[in-house]
Amino acid sequence: MTLSNTGWIAIAGLGPGDESMVTAQVQDILAEATDIVGYIPYVKRILPRPGLTLHATDNRVEIERATHALEMAASGRRVVVVSSGDPGVFAMASAVFEALEAGKPEWLDLDIQVLPGITAMLAASARIGAPMGHDFAAINLSDNLKPWSLIEKRLRLAGEAGFAMGFYNPRSKSRPHQFGRALEILRQACGGDTLISFARDVSKPGETITTVTLNEARPEMADMRTVVIVGNSDTRRVGRYVYTPRFAKDVD
Amino acid sequence: MTLSNTGWIAIAGLGPGDESMVTAQVQDILAEATDIVGYIPYVKRILPRPGLTLHATDNRVEIERATHALEMAASGRRVVVVSSGDPGVFAMASAVFEALEAGKPEWLDLDIQVLPGITAMLAASARIGAPMGHDFAAINLSDNLKPWSLIEKRLRLAGEAGFAMGFYNPRSKSRPHQFGRALEILRQACGGDTLISFARDVSKPGETITTVTLNEARPEMADMRTVVIVGNSDTRRVGRYVYTPRFAKDVD
Repeated sequence: MTLSNTGWIAIAGLGPGDESMVTAQVQDILAEATDIVGYIPYVKRILPRPGLTLHATDNRVEIERATHALEMAASGRRVVVVSSGDPGVFAMASAVFEALEAGKPEWLDLDIQVLPGITAMLAASARIGAPMGHDFAAINLSDNLKPWSLIEKRLRLAGEAGFAMGFYNPRSKSRPHQFGRALEILRQACGGDTLISFARDVSKPGETITTVTLNEARPEMADMRTVVIVGNSDTRRVGRYVYTPRFAKDVD
Repeated sequence: MTLSNTGWIAIAGLGPGDESMVTAQVQDILAEATDIVGYIPYVKRILPRPGLTLHATDNRVEIERATHALEMAASGRRVVVVSSGDPGVFAMASAVFEALEAGKPEWLDLDIQVLPGITAMLAASARIGAPMGHDFAAINLSDNLKPWSLIEKRLRLAGEAGFAMGFYNPRSKSRPHQFGRALEILRQACGGDTLISFARDVSKPGETITTVTLNEARPEMADMRTVVIVGNSDTRRVGRYVYTPRFAKDVD
């Protein structure tokens, strides 16, 4: 028996951690899957059941994982690649399309769908108040896949544009000094009084949210479990909340 | 009887339109509400039930709507302000905090929470493939609350930074010519071969997704029901999909 006409692949977002932030659409596709593929901590979030195979792999093997998922879908399996947050934001969706481009031509006929989830930056923004309430930029601060010089350039230009900013992967043990340099650039580009929020383990047990000014910010306030959000020059506190108004004057 | 200790306000995201894209957290808060406040088409998505009052208001009265919601919460009602997409992205969360700042000091003690939803840009991105798979900027192209000169500046700087971009409110009947000007700036800043996608009525009946190059793009491809996504110089097609790779070289 061949299953080759029935295979498909979905790249699904599990949101930041709280199960109540998963969409019904994603819950439904997980219920139809024969195989779940993903990074170990995300696959751990999936309840085992008969007929479901869990394929948990380590970090930094995204292309191998994506290729394996495509191979299984081509052989007739119903494969869900799980990402935390939104799969289209610094997560597995692009890796699957990279693997598709490098893979077998017949894979182009596969049924591939991306199911969005709540991305960490916007989950953090909601817990803080509304710091992304105006134009904003999202930047991955890891130089694993791009030169650090490009990250510096983007920080400067985003500051000059007056964007609020959300940073993914702000700091890791392998590159402890870069985030300090990012803070320096931001102080120059945005001004030291601009508000910066550190949201760690958003929607998970032990969640912490800390807001300070860029002048007060220290590199060790961030780690890989932190999403960092920088406001624009209008971003302000009201009561316990931080928000960016919907209006803006010219920044010139 | 006073209800004043039990009132609260939640600003909740209904996602782009498909009910299966609403989170369980938002469904649960809607079930607890006594009052729903929002723009007419979003309030229409809420099922009426005994004990629930629907307050639907027209567009462009966001501050009045937010103030009314805060007043009701202060009087003990359980109020959900509904937004489409994510309330923190060009939606009602900032308006509520603006009204809070301008309102009665005792409102600062209210229980206010923001519940995120799937924002239109990321729902569109998922349907297109993964065009936001690298650093990106989100820009509201309406000059209702900021000068058009600032929008032009942000488009130029975002292009120079090599961000993918998502545009909300790209074009309306009251300002039909600005989007053509935005396309001109983007052609200069990003190059005419850059891919641009027009996603109309994402996740709703009649959804259409069109991808062309900036050289081929025409202003009339967008209206107020369209989210526009522009790739970076690495954004490419693979099969039926458009995606941005996770890696980038220096743009200099």
